Amino acid sequence: MKGFDFEEERIKQEITKLGAKRVLLQLPEGLKPEGLRLAKIIEKNGALPIISGDPCYGACDIAVNEAESLDVDLIVHFGHSKLLMHERVPTIYVEARATVPVDKAVEQALPLLSRHVKIGLATSVQHLEVLNQVREILVRNGKTVIIGDSGQMSYPGQVSGCNYSNVKSIADEVDAFLFVGGGLFHALGVALSTSKPTVIADPYDNRAFSIDDEAQKIIKQRWASIEEARSAKTFGVVIGLKPGQKRVDEALKIKNLAQKHGDAAYLLAAKEINPETLLEFPSVDAYVNTACPRISLDASGKFSKPVLTINEFMVAIGEASWENMLKKGLFES
Amino acid sequence: MKGFDFEEERIKQEITKLGAKRVLLQLPEGLKPEGLRLAKIIEKNGALPIISGDPCYGACDIAVNEAESLDVDLIVHFGHSKLLMHERVPTIYVEARATVPVDKAVEQALPLLSRHVKIGLATSVQHLEVLNQVREILVRNGKTVIIGDSGQMSYPGQVSGCNYSNVKSIADEVDAFLFVGGGLFHALGVALSTSKPTVIADPYDNRAFSIDDEAQKIIKQRWASIEEARSAKTFGVVIGLKPGQKRVDEALKIKNLAQKHGDAAYLLAAKEINPETLLEFPSVDAYVNTACPRISLDASGKFSKPVLTINEFMVAIGEASWENMLKKGLFES
Repeated sequence: MKGFDFEEERIKQEITKLGAKRVLLQLPEGLKPEGLRLAKIIEKNGALPIISGDPCYGACDIAVNEAESLDVDLIVHFGHSKLLMHERVPTIYVEARATVPVDKAVEQALPLLSRHVKIGLATSVQHLEVLNQVREILVRNGKTVIIGDSGQMSYPGQVSGCNYSNVKSIADEVDAFLFVGGGLFHALGVALSTSKPTVIADPYDNRAFSIDDEAQKIIKQRWASIEEARSAKTFGVVIGLKPGQKRVDEALKIKNLAQKHGDAAYLLAAKEINPETLLEFPSVDAYVNTACPRISLDASGKFSKPVLTINEFMVAIGEASWENMLKKGLFES
Repeated sequence: MKGFDFEEERIKQEITKLGAKRVLLQLPEGLKPEGLRLAKIIEKNGALPIISGDPCYGACDIAVNEAESLDVDLIVHFGHSKLLMHERVPTIYVEARATVPVDKAVEQALPLLSRHVKIGLATSVQHLEVLNQVREILVRNGKTVIIGDSGQMSYPGQVSGCNYSNVKSIADEVDAFLFVGGGLFHALGVALSTSKPTVIADPYDNRAFSIDDEAQKIIKQRWASIEEARSAKTFGVVIGLKPGQKRVDEALKIKNLAQKHGDAAYLLAAKEINPETLLEFPSVDAYVNTACPRISLDASGKFSKPVLTINEFMVAIGEASWENMLKKGLFES
């Protein structure tokens, strides 16, 4: 796969340094086809490679249990930066930095930012190398550029699927955000967590566009889900089993709150939270998802019942206001 | 859910005996809707119930990792009999014995067994209580009845999704098998592992029918998959991550064998092995599945590449004969 840096030399050095005999490769869906080529490199280096086949959407989903179960002495996790403070199995993160040029896409974005002066800049881990280059293009075109650093992420300006603290930290200071990277996913997160006009500069398609209509559509869906959940009598409170998604104490609090409000509430634990999983419990009226908030926000059309985030549940039972939640941003904080 | 014994009193006694504070309920798909009712009983008994939402197809899939991750002190596993010799978390098996009468379905089966005298009797764990009653009906109608006991299962006459040792142990002595229970799944397993005429007596639909055409269809599909895999140059060897499906040493043997035959072979590990998972590796020509053999046998039409069992791989590379494999039965032994 061209256009990404898989840091093969670093991987080989780490294997040698650790004397690793058995290595688990974990790649997100878009990069999985590289698994075989990378496994071959590892095998030539004298270690046994095993490729994790299960879905992987973030560093929250690090395959520690799988590694322990397979007696693996090194995990190589691709495509995400470190999220957990500590892993029980030695782990290296290969962030798969992209080498695709971004200048054309950013130039396409300029007309869409014409009414705005102060621009917040954000990107996924893949494009961090080019942030300064993008800043220069914007400055040359008369913009003031701010790159947020909340201290919670590995790098300034970086956003992940669920952590928008860097853009939130500067939302009050900017007129709009420019997100550099492919796909709608991260840019939607920027818009949903800041309520600011957000433009994508997509270097893979060499085009730029506003994500604001898409974000508005999701906000309307979330409102409809909250409204539907207000009449729920039985809640399913979902605990995620992925290492960085497990929030048992939060789930317990929600269960108690629902019961305090006179509703029934049941704890459900699952690794993969999908429509099929939730269909198995027909007597549940609405779910509260304490795992990955993107499951609620991005996939709501796929579920037949409301699947609220923790914040949305607080609105549904009247413990928080919709307006305040929107102001805080749709992601837990 | 009427018609099954969920042994609520035993569950309550075990919770009290163990002083369990947090209980994980694990139910197969068909029984999951009972989860909320059972959780309520457990909560009334003073323990915190958590329902496992992930798919569960057998006692091979016991949620031990999940239980440890959730600090659970008791697993209650429904619908299957004990499979693993030892679990790391205290576990009770509630076999969910069925209370549905079977005599009418068995009477429907008699005409289909008219040409056979010696009948092997088999059932899933749900219907073990009625085996003697079924035996009596058959004997009254002039049949000789044999119930196999390989010593490998919890009960004589019992078959599970992947263990047909009880029917294999008597296959040479009988003319045909009668399977008592719902669905095609277990009866297909009886036919595929013994190559004997097999009739289902389904007490839920009160009807009986032969499974032989369906078994022949699967055998033809398996042959076609093996033929297709003969020209494979790159094999994916799949390791199952469910506790009772993990066979790393077998996978390593297959990888080495494939390489000895001049093919490339890569180890892939997954909890859920489905078409989406395998689609992520387009350069693999054929898979060898060391996890649940039913994934290969029952779902072959869903996969775009051959997904062979271990035995089938041995046929594909010429280390075993098709005829011998059919004679041994399509399940690993």
